[in-house]
Amino acid sequence: MSEEEYMKLALRLARRGLGWTSPNPVVGAVLVKDSRIVGRGYHRRFGGNHAEINALQNASTDPAGATLYVTLEPCCHYGKTPPCVDAIISNKIIRVVIGTLDPNPQVSGKGAKILNQQGIETRVGVLEEACRKLNEAHFKYMTTGLPLVTLKFAQTLDGRIATASGDSRWISSEEFRKRVHRLRATSDAVLVGIDTVLADNPQLTVRLVRGRSPTRVILDSRLRMPPDSEIVRTRDIVPVMIATTAQADSKKVSQLREMGIEILVIQPDEFGEIDLKHLLRALGERNIASLLVEGGAKVITSFLRQKLADKLVVAIAPKIMGRGIDAVGELNIAKISQALKLNFQKVSRAGEDIVIEARVDRSAG
Amino acid sequence: MSEEEYMKLALRLARRGLGWTSPNPVVGAVLVKDSRIVGRGYHRRFGGNHAEINALQNASTDPAGATLYVTLEPCCHYGKTPPCVDAIISNKIIRVVIGTLDPNPQVSGKGAKILNQQGIETRVGVLEEACRKLNEAHFKYMTTGLPLVTLKFAQTLDGRIATASGDSRWISSEEFRKRVHRLRATSDAVLVGIDTVLADNPQLTVRLVRGRSPTRVILDSRLRMPPDSEIVRTRDIVPVMIATTAQADSKKVSQLREMGIEILVIQPDEFGEIDLKHLLRALGERNIASLLVEGGAKVITSFLRQKLADKLVVAIAPKIMGRGIDAVGELNIAKISQALKLNFQKVSRAGEDIVIEARVDRSAG
Repeated sequence: MSEEEYMKLALRLARRGLGWTSPNPVVGAVLVKDSRIVGRGYHRRFGGNHAEINALQNASTDPAGATLYVTLEPCCHYGKTPPCVDAIISNKIIRVVIGTLDPNPQVSGKGAKILNQQGIETRVGVLEEACRKLNEAHFKYMTTGLPLVTLKFAQTLDGRIATASGDSRWISSEEFRKRVHRLRATSDAVLVGIDTVLADNPQLTVRLVRGRSPTRVILDSRLRMPPDSEIVRTRDIVPVMIATTAQADSKKVSQLREMGIEILVIQPDEFGEIDLKHLLRALGERNIASLLVEGGAKVITSFLRQKLADKLVVAIAPKIMGRGIDAVGELNIAKISQALKLNFQKVSRAGEDIVIEARVDRSAG
Repeated sequence: MSEEEYMKLALRLARRGLGWTSPNPVVGAVLVKDSRIVGRGYHRRFGGNHAEINALQNASTDPAGATLYVTLEPCCHYGKTPPCVDAIISNKIIRVVIGTLDPNPQVSGKGAKILNQQGIETRVGVLEEACRKLNEAHFKYMTTGLPLVTLKFAQTLDGRIATASGDSRWISSEEFRKRVHRLRATSDAVLVGIDTVLADNPQLTVRLVRGRSPTRVILDSRLRMPPDSEIVRTRDIVPVMIATTAQADSKKVSQLREMGIEILVIQPDEFGEIDLKHLLRALGERNIASLLVEGGAKVITSFLRQKLADKLVVAIAPKIMGRGIDAVGELNIAKISQALKLNFQKVSRAGEDIVIEARVDRSAG
């Protein structure tokens, strides 16, 4: 097997941790001795052993003299567990092949350097793009302090998410709604506007697939959240944060806080709405590295207008509605050349729907 | 080879005629004797030999005793050429396998019946759906007298075809524009509204690929067509029809008619606009079996609102524009369940764009 093939296996192992390791990245590791795979490991959940340690502990033979393949640079600092570089050194590994350096400033090249200084041969950058993409939220979060923002919506072919009167059940297929639950399970938090809560009274939890429910964040500048909503009702099972402004009624703030709901008082923008950049920073400070924005149209439009969205997951249903509620509202774009540029990354089917995954190209526009 | 495999080969042969046979359907034929393919043929162009005759004439051996595989029922009437059933009988073919019956009322089961009466074994309905789909325009045209209507447009992911000020060059990729020229080459006519002519001054001919240019049809209720437009300028190379109403200035009608442009005076609908159903009937009477509607938004919306569209070919460009000119305007749909239902048939890429081909589901809504 080639080095790329060992790394592919490590990537496959890493993916098993998706949804369970945040705010840590997912990591996979493979131990190879005399051209035989003698150990495999991955980071299973936040607080548990790192991938390298699991591979070393699972080794079917003495790891001394082996090569370690790991998707992300081994850590060199004390976190919840001791540094991985120490274990690599004490186990007499002779070569470490690293998918990509860790953007975490506590590691970021230092892990590889320590190994090198100990006479362990290191190679950095095998399947680097795939290794970075696997932890894209971690990369953005570590370098900016802000969570990776994914906008999700389901629209008709002509770009409508509801009729003019607000009827939106259901535009998308059951298969897409299942996929949304999978997206929730791999996000640290999910966000909707208060209008969506008032209209649909959603739970925003993970029910249609197995997985952990994300923290629910509600944009609610005037604190209109009904205390008997599904979200408030389920607050002890899955955390709730409400982002509001100083306009909010202080009695209601206290009432909700006493119920165990975190209230984030965010500075308003020039229009008196919650400043989304400040909100993202506040979420980042609370260890939220990935945020799934589920609507409605006003919230989606705000994230796009302020260029705060990184990714889009859009279901296109086989329907045409004509005038109704548009997925995307006014962006003040006067020329085609000023349009937000996307990179379509994947097209797939979910039931009858076509699902487009895209990245917002920040370099353009 | 199985009967399905021979029919597949006949279908492949038939496709070579696409764009050249209208108002005839495309047809392919394979002659098989003693399990060997001894002849192949297809209908190459309107007025030329039918597929069966070409297969018989190209036969490498005496066709007597052979089986003929043909995608569409052999004709039994005199058209531009003598009936194919006569040639099949006189060549002593012993078995005929037919993809699908011909909806043409002059044939429609009569061809197969005559063969049967002559003691020739016939089997009807091999790869029937594919054989019908290949000639979907012919099937609609023969059964309704109306052309198959395909709407084509290029939109941003959020459903806009231009900015509010009308900037639309270019939403789509060059590859998609090439594909549009291929669509034109396989359509009998292409249609736009006069606003598109006034804004873009297009030729609507086939230039980016090899192929025949379709008749150009302009919706122009008040006959505003500029005599110096590209469409008028090229009238001697590719036919032009202008659909207008009795409101049109009679002097301008005469002027354009003298220039060799066909003016169709169509009865107006309740809003004083050209009645599209009447227009389709008039086009059908002029041997137009397939119509490609290229816009703009008002025309596309009218065809959808009146449920006169059969198919859609939509390019989705990797852009988000926000408020602008919507591909589809008001359809007076109040509930999701009333939305126009589509069947997505094919998703492909054209350069950076995603291209969705869909059928309008007439049974629903």
